[in-house]
Amino acid sequence: MKIAVLGSNVVGQTLAEKLNSLGHEVMIGTRNVKDTMARSGSDSVGRPPFSDWHTKNAGIKVGTLSEAAFFGEFIVNATNGVNSIAALEQAGVKNLANKIILDIANPLDFSKGMPPTLSVCNTDSLGEQIQRAFPYTKVVKALNTMNAYIMVNPALIPEDHNVFLSSNDETAKAKVKTLLQSFGWKSHNIIDMGDISTARGTEQLLPIWVRLWGILQNPMFNFKIAIGPKPN
Amino acid sequence: MKIAVLGSNVVGQTLAEKLNSLGHEVMIGTRNVKDTMARSGSDSVGRPPFSDWHTKNAGIKVGTLSEAAFFGEFIVNATNGVNSIAALEQAGVKNLANKIILDIANPLDFSKGMPPTLSVCNTDSLGEQIQRAFPYTKVVKALNTMNAYIMVNPALIPEDHNVFLSSNDETAKAKVKTLLQSFGWKSHNIIDMGDISTARGTEQLLPIWVRLWGILQNPMFNFKIAIGPKPN
Repeated sequence: MKIAVLGSNVVGQTLAEKLNSLGHEVMIGTRNVKDTMARSGSDSVGRPPFSDWHTKNAGIKVGTLSEAAFFGEFIVNATNGVNSIAALEQAGVKNLANKIILDIANPLDFSKGMPPTLSVCNTDSLGEQIQRAFPYTKVVKALNTMNAYIMVNPALIPEDHNVFLSSNDETAKAKVKTLLQSFGWKSHNIIDMGDISTARGTEQLLPIWVRLWGILQNPMFNFKIAIGPKPN
Repeated sequence: MKIAVLGSNVVGQTLAEKLNSLGHEVMIGTRNVKDTMARSGSDSVGRPPFSDWHTKNAGIKVGTLSEAAFFGEFIVNATNGVNSIAALEQAGVKNLANKIILDIANPLDFSKGMPPTLSVCNTDSLGEQIQRAFPYTKVVKALNTMNAYIMVNPALIPEDHNVFLSSNDETAKAKVKTLLQSFGWKSHNIIDMGDISTARGTEQLLPIWVRLWGILQNPMFNFKIAIGPKPN
């Protein structure tokens, strides 16, 4: 499948690499290709610059947000959550129309210091905002509740743990579920939360996620819903 | 220990019963004792009226919010989260002073329909509001992320699962940890989140919790933080 990964940071790179390794044709979309390729030094999480990564992953195309959105039959939103709507507008309503947007972004607002707050929550969510702003797309919120390495390789945590799906479109949800299974997600660990408004719940996992990261000093953790026997 | 459980609904009853069974002297505090005792028919979750429960648990005292707060050396806030500040004011600043308040309430607002939203979140939490409103108390937020039956009997879920602690006071946190262990919580499943502002994270687990309850059709579940090996 032709897949556009919008966003060139660690999350976008990790998703693009995995999708490419599974045989998909992948194009990373970035605001300004020249600027992205010219980045030097390590990025904010200590990774080498984008161009170094791209040299090792030359099979992955790089284009503008709109080139990538035009190219992809399937879109991954791995942009910074607080700027996702603007980035998707740049990608272009027409380029996105009738496509699935797998939204893995979180509306984390770092502008008021650490830990970040959410720029939207409780009575709305980024997933819903994207679905409203791009009504001719099929938004599926998923994978936003964990580190990028775990998203594409759930076996990094040996025990069972969960990924949540939210979407108004059942067919789109089924397609994303199949993609998640190709990443190694076991069917029984994929929880269908319901419509896109349930993204409120998964995006609101982030405040505890960022605190846990600090406490555990390890980003390799995820939420597991532990279930006991039903009461009589 | 003399313990006041503020709140006479299923959560308060369950906590009071467990604490009493462990040998504590317990008084349930309720706004209006006469009204509470006069309730007839099943309650909102299909349980028998309070007076029936109290007949079976005659060792548990029942008083007004202020009588209970005066009685208790240790306070459990099991009142309705959106009314907790008002209930604690009724309990009385002086009666609460220098005591630990174990805050197990959630600020769930059902006034806008189902599922409920949070009346405070993201940049503040009920735990913090209580700590600010009653600065001479030691607020410990805990147990608010699960069903009442699991709070007092974690073995209802056979596998490991977690309870989170948030408080500005380390001694209060240690006391609550000991109490949780007496309920059956294993030390390695009790996660110290840090100061009371971390209650934002645990209270924001509620939006996904209420959705999961509907999906699983079973209230006997809880969050488990699944942890993988640290990356090199």
